Formats: sequence, structure tokens, C-alpha cells
Amino acid sequence: MKHTDNQPIAWIEAEPAPGTFRSVFKWGDHDRFKNPSQGFLKVIKDALHLSANDLSQPFNTGETSIPELSPTPLSSTDIHALESIVGKENVCLDTVSRVRFATGKSMEDILKLRSGIVDCVTDAVVHPRSRDDVSAIMTFCNSRGIPIQAYGGGSSVTLGLSCSRGGVTLVLATHMNRLLGFNEINQTITVESGMMGPDYEKLLNSAPETMGSRHRYTGGHFPQSFEHSSVGGWVVTLGAGQASSYYGDACDLVISQEVITPCGDLKTLEYPGTATGPKVNDILKGSEGCFGVLVAVTMKVFRYTPENRRAFSYMFPDFESSVLATREISQGEFGMPSILRVSDPEETDVAMKMYGLDDSLPDRFLRMRKLMPGKRCLLMGQTEGEKHFSKNVAASVKKICRRHNGVWLSSYPMKKWYHSRYSDAYLRDSLNDAGILIDTLETSVTWDTLHHLHSRVRALIKQHPHTICMTHASHFYPQGTNLYFIFITRMQDLESFRNFQRGIIAKIVENGGSLSHHHGVGKLMGPFMEQHLGKVQMDVLRALKRHFDPNGIMNPGGTLGLD
Amino acid sequence: MKHTDNQPIAWIEAEPAPGTFRSVFKWGDHDRFKNPSQGFLKVIKDALHLSANDLSQPFNTGETSIPELSPTPLSSTDIHALESIVGKENVCLDTVSRVRFATGKSMEDILKLRSGIVDCVTDAVVHPRSRDDVSAIMTFCNSRGIPIQAYGGGSSVTLGLSCSRGGVTLVLATHMNRLLGFNEINQTITVESGMMGPDYEKLLNSAPETMGSRHRYTGGHFPQSFEHSSVGGWVVTLGAGQASSYYGDACDLVISQEVITPCGDLKTLEYPGTATGPKVNDILKGSEGCFGVLVAVTMKVFRYTPENRRAFSYMFPDFESSVLATREISQGEFGMPSILRVSDPEETDVAMKMYGLDDSLPDRFLRMRKLMPGKRCLLMGQTEGEKHFSKNVAASVKKICRRHNGVWLSSYPMKKWYHSRYSDAYLRDSLNDAGILIDTLETSVTWDTLHHLHSRVRALIKQHPHTICMTHASHFYPQGTNLYFIFITRMQDLESFRNFQRGIIAKIVENGGSLSHHHGVGKLMGPFMEQHLGKVQMDVLRALKRHFDPNGIMNPGGTLGLD
Repeated sequence: MKHTDNQPIAWIEAEPAPGTFRSVFKWGDHDRFKNPSQGFLKVIKDALHLSANDLSQPFNTGETSIPELSPTPLSSTDIHALESIVGKENVCLDTVSRVRFATGKSMEDILKLRSGIVDCVTDAVVHPRSRDDVSAIMTFCNSRGIPIQAYGGGSSVTLGLSCSRGGVTLVLATHMNRLLGFNEINQTITVESGMMGPDYEKLLNSAPETMGSRHRYTGGHFPQSFEHSSVGGWVVTLGAGQASSYYGDACDLVISQEVITPCGDLKTLEYPGTATGPKVNDILKGSEGCFGVLVAVTMKVFRYTPENRRAFSYMFPDFESSVLATREISQGEFGMPSILRVSDPEETDVAMKMYGLDDSLPDRFLRMRKLMPGKRCLLMGQTEGEKHFSKNVAASVKKICRRHNGVWLSSYPMKKWYHSRYSDAYLRDSLNDAGILIDTLETSVTWDTLHHLHSRVRALIKQHPHTICMTHASHFYPQGTNLYFIFITRMQDLESFRNFQRGIIAKIVENGGSLSHHHGVGKLMGPFMEQHLGKVQMDVLRALKRHFDPNGIMNPGGTLGLD
Repeated sequence: MKHTDNQPIAWIEAEPAPGTFRSVFKWGDHDRFKNPSQGFLKVIKDALHLSANDLSQPFNTGETSIPELSPTPLSSTDIHALESIVGKENVCLDTVSRVRFATGKSMEDILKLRSGIVDCVTDAVVHPRSRDDVSAIMTFCNSRGIPIQAYGGGSSVTLGLSCSRGGVTLVLATHMNRLLGFNEINQTITVESGMMGPDYEKLLNSAPETMGSRHRYTGGHFPQSFEHSSVGGWVVTLGAGQASSYYGDACDLVISQEVITPCGDLKTLEYPGTATGPKVNDILKGSEGCFGVLVAVTMKVFRYTPENRRAFSYMFPDFESSVLATREISQGEFGMPSILRVSDPEETDVAMKMYGLDDSLPDRFLRMRKLMPGKRCLLMGQTEGEKHFSKNVAASVKKICRRHNGVWLSSYPMKKWYHSRYSDAYLRDSLNDAGILIDTLETSVTWDTLHHLHSRVRALIKQHPHTICMTHASHFYPQGTNLYFIFITRMQDLESFRNFQRGIIAKIVENGGSLSHHHGVGKLMGPFMEQHLGKVQMDVLRALKRHFDPNGIMNPGGTLGLD
């Protein structure tokens, strides 16, 4: 990695060698890379006060091999028992497996591995072939007090996968990724929980060919981790996709769940609406593997009509007016756009520079219209649904944006965003290689707390010298939205990062934000849960935990703040 | 009550005398009555094979006084303790109060009272003035093991209010009916749980005058019991209103709840979307007073734009095509009508006769179009929301109905229905006076089970000689709907009725229907719960019950099948 001002940085664009730290923490496909554009790099260098020299020093690139772990503490009897359930070939005890499947994609996971720290590994990686395998493993582990963790796509950013008490990690995507049923009459699909996002969506988009259906369908769930997350993972962590404002959050999409728990197996009923007491289907959503292992889900599906989509973008004079426009859109009773995003001034400025629009003809036009850097805000999105519905939503959005002095910017920014909606996640590895920290925290807010929380949290982040803080809202409800903070700074050591990050989380909660809008809780947010929800509510979750998992074997060690 | 074929029936149209059985079981306002139209009466007489003489014998009209109960079993110390909390004037021990507030509006409640049977009364009626009163009562009763029941509007049709273990009944509508807060920015309202439907809706409709808001609002929740049910009651029983297909069921409307439980008081957070583990707000919905007393709710509100409403009705050649049309509407991705109803052939025929349309000019027109009695089905509804949205939904409905050979019938049937949407509940008392039983059972179904369940349940009901069985679906989701069975027959004795009704419930469950779509569970459906949900799911509800209510004081005696 070399860099002078005249010479481009030599980004690492080699597949990580097997067995290296890098092979574990690298995002996504091993042969896919994304480096910051010249525009983005210039933004970062300016904001972080970096010299060419700063960037030429590669930082803990993790290209060395992970040293052999000491052998699994599981007894040979236990291992034999697991092998007799799933077959010898589906039990892995090698170091890389034990590290990989106990690692998520949080900045903490990555910084640790870049520093050569390996802890909280699993004792055995098991690839169950079916719900019956999971059931047999559950019975066995429960009787032996062996912890069970479930691993879907591995994209957790909340330390949801680390195995602080060792035990067994069940990798669901290996075999348990099958279609179990498609019901076009009810517009539902039933899949094993380990099916990955792209397989799920492809199956639905091509339903006439693959499942003999009359229409094409979509699952409507597109988190940034879409390509590397599983359907089950969406459900157990209460995820939300980029099109959630129309399709709903993951919790809205789940019709029924089949779960294997230490206290028994259950499958919730498939009624779209019932009045038979508190709904066990709801109680299980967001349980993050603490109550049991989700083995199958029945999900709502929607008609796939990309031909009806309409992209839009507007520039607003300031954050207040752009947020007000999104509120009026969300409360306007004409239906919701699928994608809706509004960026604060700093994110807007960075976006303009990233897309090479700074000081361009469009930029000069915007400045003439008094839409000035440091103040102006970008709003963009997309409508879908039935043709006239989509058209009317777009027309209503236009009317509201104009009323609040939004200037039409064409569908170009949306196209740019769409193109990089999943690939931006690859940027982090490149930036980290250059010693630049990039991380995110997100929260949900009601409309009346949004600006206060935004300014307080932003102020805290900006207290750290030479730090970029970009914020957007991207999931909308009539009653509020989320705020998504992206911070970029020069920070390389784990403890400094942890202190900085925990400080931001505390500031979010202190200012009335939720601990999490869609990243889940994991072991990262766990310690904040009781303060956030209060003891009486936490006691309810603890009572459920005791009921489902009396021996405390399910994803133990602080997930959801339960133990 | 006298009747010959030439002489109209002398319906009882006097306010029930205070202290009588009738004063307890009569529906709604004491000075409001509704008798069957000549058309409806003729339908009934024909179907039930009734002579004029049959109808002239009034049946157990309950005009006698309820005999004095033996004194409350509560000790004078306990009574004094309650009085010291809420004031002497808010503790009632008289017979009528103890019967009234332990009685709902199920056919079983009514038949019992008409037969002079009084059981399962409460030991003391308490009118708490505030959440602090409820909290103090909770602490006291929990320490003494005294049962607590909560009474909202009293419209339960599932034996949800009977006090099989006596104890204290808290009447929430007396004092705890206040507005606690209105947040126009977030589009939420917070009210005490005892606020009644009409007060709630009036407050919202007149928000600019009463709360100084910019817009008018609606709560969007209109169950048939609207005029005599409370906001809290909607939430704890998982109700659904007549406009639920657009606004959502009660469970979709609740942003947060404040609940006093034996294990502590809690108020859930107000985020519209979060990912902080299983949501206690969801866990409490539908708990029917078994976990605690709901004292306040924060609900979503919606813009009130009656000027945008569009009513529609169509006649279809058969039930299959009309149901198919509602399915295509529900899956069409253009938004939902607020009201949507489809009647089966028998209900359609009865409606035509009730509205005096049988053999009218429109009827002859329909027959010419091959829309024949015994086959044809009425579909009707209403759209609302933003002007163009509402218009597009109505246009989309029209397109779909035409495609399935629905014939446009104008907005007339919808107007007729709208006019009697709440008042039809008064009909039951009149019919009961004439010895005619009318009752309902409802279930939720997925689209693929609808017709099978409809024909099986209908066949069972029609096995009973001379019985009308009308069915409609009235709450729609992309994945299914509900079926609402109304049966009218000659049946006067409690045991026959109970056997008949329990047989229908068993038949619904046996054929894949939910135990309840929006009536809740109460003590009526309680015994079926374990069979319906399975032991593992019932154990989850039992674990929650044990946690919230370790001494088993909350609405005990079989509610939700928990004890």
C-alpha cells in the first residue's frame, strides 16, 4: 500500500489467503473489492487532515494466518454425539471454522482480528441438514448444558455471533436453505431460515419459471447486508430493508415461525389476523437466538412490478424542511414510497463530492437557487406498487417537496445510490487498510425528538477531532423514522474505539432514541437494555428466557442483556 | 307482546326498570330500541317456520327485579381498605352493580339473565379515579389474593367479564376516560383506557377546536360495539373495526401501553419501529386483563377526510367469484378500501329482503343478468385516504369486480349498511323477546381454507332445523380474511344453546379456522386454546401469566385458557 499525492493508493485487491485473519473479517465475496472514489478520498483526506504519507502506511491488514487454537474443550463423547446426529462431515473443529463462525461484521470484530486478537470462539461448528437435526442437537445440548449459537449470514454488527461461553454454533446456510412451500393463493412462501437473501429474492422474482406461479413476486426486504444475510437472520434480529417504508420491517413480513427451543418445538399458526391472546409469533420476533433456533419461516410476498417504479430526488435548503417533507409524505395517506432517504447537510455535501458533482453545472444551478453547501439536504427515493398507485405516490411526493422548496434533481442520484446500495459495504475494508475507521450507529426516533437527538449526537461525534459525521433517515412511519449515523475518523486502537462508540450509544439513549432501529441488540447493546427499557420490561424478557431456556444454553453471554 | 298476521308485534319499547334483569342485559342505551323490519321478520318467520302465535309469546323478558345477593364475601377490613384508596363513593356493593359489571353481552350472559340465573358476580365494584388508584388497588389485592377484573365498555361476547372467583371489578369508564396527551407532530393520542369509542372519535374529529390542532383526525377503529366499547377494551381483546382493512386492527394502532401489573408498573416506549428484542408492547396486546390492568394507551391517529370517501357495491354471480374479487383487491398493491364486505348467498338473499329489494325493479334487473337468489353475492365497501389514493382504490376495485362479473349496484346498499352499522346490535333484544335466538361466531382464515371452512361450518349450522345462517367476510389482508357467521333459530334453553355453540366452535377449529378473529378469547374460547395453539405455545402464555401474576389474581377463572 503506497500513496503519494500524485500516485494512486495501491489498494489490496487480492483474495485473502485461506486461514488468514483477513479471510475471516473481509466483507462479502472474497474476490470482490471496492475502493473509495477519488472524490470520496479527497473528502476524507481533507476532513481527517491526512497527508499522503498517512495513507501510505497500511494498517493491520490481517494477512497473516490465525494461529492454531488449543483443541476444542468439548469431550470426544460430545463430539461423537454431534457427529452421530449430523454426520462426521458436518462437524468442524478446525481453527478457522471456530473463529469464522463466531465472528460478525462489527467494527469491534474487525479491529480485534486486525490486531490478532481471537477470543469468544465456538467449540464446534455444526452444519445441520434439517429441522430434525436441530431438534436432536437441541435435546442433546440441553441435557449436557452445552451452549448453542445459530449462524445465518454472519453479518451481525452487534456482536451477536461471538461465543463467550463456547459451545456449538449451528451454521444454517449450509444445508438449511431450501424452499419448503409456496402458496400463491395466500401470497406466502415458506423457507428454511438459512436461505440467503439473493436466493430468496431470485426464487420469488422468477416464480413462474421456478414455482409455476401466475405472477412474479418480491420479498420486499433489502437490507444493505442483503447479499450476505439470511431470511432467518432478518427475522430474529428485527431487521428493516431499504424499501421498508412500503413493504414493512422484517417483523411485519413474518406470517409464521417454526422454532426449536429447549422447552419444545413449535410452529405458529398462519392466520394474517387473530384475536387469540398474545401472539407467540410476535414474542419470538427479535429474540436473537436466545429462546431457540428458528428453522423455518413463512413470509408475506408481494407482486414484483419493477416496471412501475419511479425514482425521485430533491434538494432542500436545509435539514428542517427536508425532514418536514418526509413527515408530510409519511402522514399524507396516499401510500408510502418504498425507498425514502433524507441526508443531513454533511452527508449531502459528501455525496455531492463523492458523485463528482461539487462545483459542477448542477451544483452552480443549486447555489443560484440558494441551496448552499453546509445547509442543503438531499432527499431521494422510489415508489412502487400498482401502476397508478406508484404514480400517485410520486406525484404526491413532488407536491410536498415543492411546497417545502425542494428542487427536483432528476432520478440520477437515486440511480447512483441504487447502483452502490450493497457494494458500499466493501468500502470499509479498504478504508480500514488505510488506517481509517468507518462505522455506523442507528436509532429510531419519533418526529418530535428527531432534531434534538440529531444535533446532540452529532455534536458528540464531532467533538472528536477531524471526524466526518454523516446522518440520514431511511425508514419511515407516520409516527417517526430512524437516524443512521456514519462516522469516519482516524482511530486504530480497540479501546479508543470502544470508548468512543459506547459514548455515542449512551448519548443516543440519553436523548430519547431507541437503542436500535434495525441492527438488533446482540452483546453490544445488551448492557444498555435495562436502562433503556426499565427493569419491569426487562423482567418480562428474562421470564421468557427462563421459560424457553431454563439451562441458559441459547446464545448466552449477554445477548439482549439477558445474562 | 302480541302478534297476529294482521297485527304488528307489540315490541317492548320501554326503558327497563332499574334493578331488573333487563336493565343489565339490554344492549346499549336504555332508551334506544330497534325492531326487525317487516321484511326481516318475514324472512325469519319463513325460515324458522314460525306462526304468528309463536311470536306472540314473549320469552323471558327479564322485567323482574334481580333478587338481592347475599352480602359481599369481602371482609369489612378489605372493603375499608378499598374505600380508603378510591373514596367511599367509588366502591359499590349493591346487587345490581355486582351483577352488571360481571356481565358481558354474549348470548350466554343474556340467556342466563333472562332465565333468572345469576352467578359469577363480582364481590365489589370499584371506580378508580386514576392510574395511581389502580396501582394502589393492585398492591392491596395482590397482597390479599383478591381477584381483579377490569371492565371497559362491557361489550364482551366471550364471557370475558364474568367473575368466577369473585373479587374486585374495576370500572374504568367512570373516571379513567380522560385525554392525557395529543401529539400532532407524531400523530398520536394518549388516553386513559376507559375512554369510550364515541368520545375518542369525537375528540379526534374536532381536534382543531378541542385540541388546537392543524388537521382533523380519526382513530380509524369502528367495531360494531363502537358506541359501547372503550379504547382500552379494543386493545386488550385484539379487536378489529369495520374499517380495519385500511386502518389496521387494534393491535396495529397501539404505539404504547401503560399497564399496572402485580409484578410492577410499566409504560412501553413510543418508537414506531425498533429492534430491541421481543416487544413488550406486543406481548401485552390481547392479554385480556390476565397480566395486568391497562390504564393508558398511546394510539396512532389518521387524517380525517370524509370528503374523500367513495362507497361501492357490486353483485356477483356466486360466492367463489366475489371472494376471488376480494382476494385480488387485497393483493393488488394499490392500497386497501377501508370497508370491504362480501356476503355469502344466504346473507345476500336476506339483505335483499331486509332492504325490501326482493322482487323489486333492481332485483328483476339482476335476475335478467343471471344473478340469481341462492347463488348471487353482495360485495360492498368504501375507500378513503388522500383524494387521488381513494379514487384509485375505487377505480381498481371496479376493474377487478367487473373482471369477475360483478354488476355495479350504486352506493345505496353501502348507505343502508352504514346507517345501521351500530344500531343492528339493538335487534337482538327484540328478537330474543320473541323467543328467537340470534348469535354470531367469527374466525380468521387464509384464502386457501376459506371455502372449505365456510361450507363445513355452514353445513353444521344448517343441520339444526329451521335455521338461518348468514356469513360474511369483512376484514381483509393480503394473506386472508375473516368469516363471520350469524345464526338465527328458535332456541330458548341455555344448555341447548351452549351445546350448539360449542359444536360450531369445534367445527371451526377442526376445519383450520382461528378460534377468534376479533372477538377475543375470554372464558368462552379459553377451553379450546390449548388444542388450537398446541401445548408448547400455551406454555409460553402460561409462563407470562406466572411472571406477571404469580398469585393468579388477574381476571382468573379460565380467561385465555390460562387457569
